[in-house]
Formats: sequence, C-alpha cells, structure tokens
Amino acid sequence: MERKPLYFDDVKEGDEVPAFVVENLTRTDLVKYAGASGDFNPMHHDEPFAQKVGLPSVFAHGMLNAGFVSKCVTDYVGRENLRKLKVRFATRVWPGDTITCKGKVTKKWEDGGKRLIEGEVAALNQKGETAISGAFTAELPGR
Amino acid sequence: MERKPLYFDDVKEGDEVPAFVVENLTRTDLVKYAGASGDFNPMHHDEPFAQKVGLPSVFAHGMLNAGFVSKCVTDYVGRENLRKLKVRFATRVWPGDTITCKGKVTKKWEDGGKRLIEGEVAALNQKGETAISGAFTAELPGR
Repeated sequence: MERKPLYFDDVKEGDEVPAFVVENLTRTDLVKYAGASGDFNPMHHDEPFAQKVGLPSVFAHGMLNAGFVSKCVTDYVGRENLRKLKVRFATRVWPGDTITCKGKVTKKWEDGGKRLIEGEVAALNQKGETAISGAFTAELPGR
Repeated sequence: MERKPLYFDDVKEGDEVPAFVVENLTRTDLVKYAGASGDFNPMHHDEPFAQKVGLPSVFAHGMLNAGFVSKCVTDYVGRENLRKLKVRFATRVWPGDTITCKGKVTKKWEDGGKRLIEGEVAALNQKGETAISGAFTAELPGR
C-alpha cells in the first residue's frame, strides 16, 4: 500500500499519529524476530529457561516492540522524513498481548528552512499499560 | 578444517563412517533452524502449543535431524561425491538430546568406470533409540 504523503502545512500540534496495532503477538513472531535479528537470547524463545529464572513465560525482544513503535511513526511521517526516535522500555510484552502504538504531534516549527514536527508515541498493551514510550522528530515536505 | 579426501581404493565393506555428534540439542538450535529453513511450525518452538496437543515439549524438525545425518555422511565421503541419501524418520528428537550419527559401508563396486560405495547410516539419541535411519550412495575418486 502506498503511503499518502504527510505535508507540513497539513499538520497541527495535537494531531494524532494513527494507531498501529499488533494483535495477539505469538511465540512464532518472537522466533521470526530472533532469526531476523540474530538475537537468540533464550529468554525470548526457551519456555523452561524463562520459567527457571522466575518469569511466567518467554517475552518479546525490546527491539521488536521498538520496531512496532517505529512502524507506527514512519507510517505517519514517512520513513525518509524521520530524523530522531527515542524509546524508553517500560513493561514487558508477552505472547498473547495485543499492542497498540499511537501518538500525537506536540510541536511544529520551522528552523532555517526546515519544516519540523516533534511528537510523542507509545506502545500500550491490552490492559493499557505502557510497554514503550518514545518521542520522534521529523522533517516534513511543504506543499 | 579441510576434509581429508576419501579414495575408493582405501575403502572396504564394513568400514565405519566416523561418528558426528550433536551434544545437548537446545531450543535455540531449533529456533535457529526455524529461521534458516523458514519452517515456523509452532510444534518446534511454542511450548504451550506443543503441550496442548499432548507432547511433553517442543521437538526438533525432522529435516534438522536429517541434516545431521547428511553432515555425518558428507564429512566422510565428501559433499561433491554424495549421489543418494535416503532417510526414514523414526523417533522424535527433543531438547536436551544428544544425537550421534554413524554408519558403515555395506557395498563397494565399480560400474562403467564409476567407483561406487553404498552405506547405511543412523542418528541415535542418548538412549540408543534410532531417530533416523538412512542409506547413502557415493561415487569416490580413485588414487
């Protein structure tokens, strides 16, 4: 699907970053991420190992969750326009969780010909707990 | 490590195919195989899923075990000399298993200038149960 371009002129402070939702994260998703990233920490795929260290089950790689947040932001601003993305890890994400990433524009300004926006973004689980909070800066095209 | 070439002249019927051993197969090994092969059947990485269908745990992909057998044979005859490999799946392989692949040469003959050997090979677990049995044919160089 082609992304509709986001123009600086059309954005105002307080605008919402449309939600990106991952429903029912599976162990298979974690295994695919392990293979793709090369992060084979058994915490993310070895159930007895995870339970031995006191966890209820395996849990998602932090950077997988950060990837969801990043996708939410770049779906909105455009990959080529993202200048900064900061993330802060809060709650763990577990198999079966549904993760909703969303955010809003907090600032809009121009700086030496650059059209910039700043926003906050977060990934929440189905209980409304924050898995990741973050902030982004993007430079947008004018019309 | 460079493989020492195996010459037809040096092989006799009854010769052993040197053992190839995989000690303590881990869930991480299965996850790596899933990523490398693209076989994401949850049976091989999703513990609750495997247990729900009545298994004690996840288990190894049959073709991963077949790969061990293949490595045992090609370490012996040379990858470029293997002409046929048949495998038959017997017992499942579980995390924590140690798999020993070994075999022997059962036949040696020449056919129209081709120097051929045939052998049997098997992968056994630490209890001596056969995980895979198989047979191979190789065409070897003369001295």
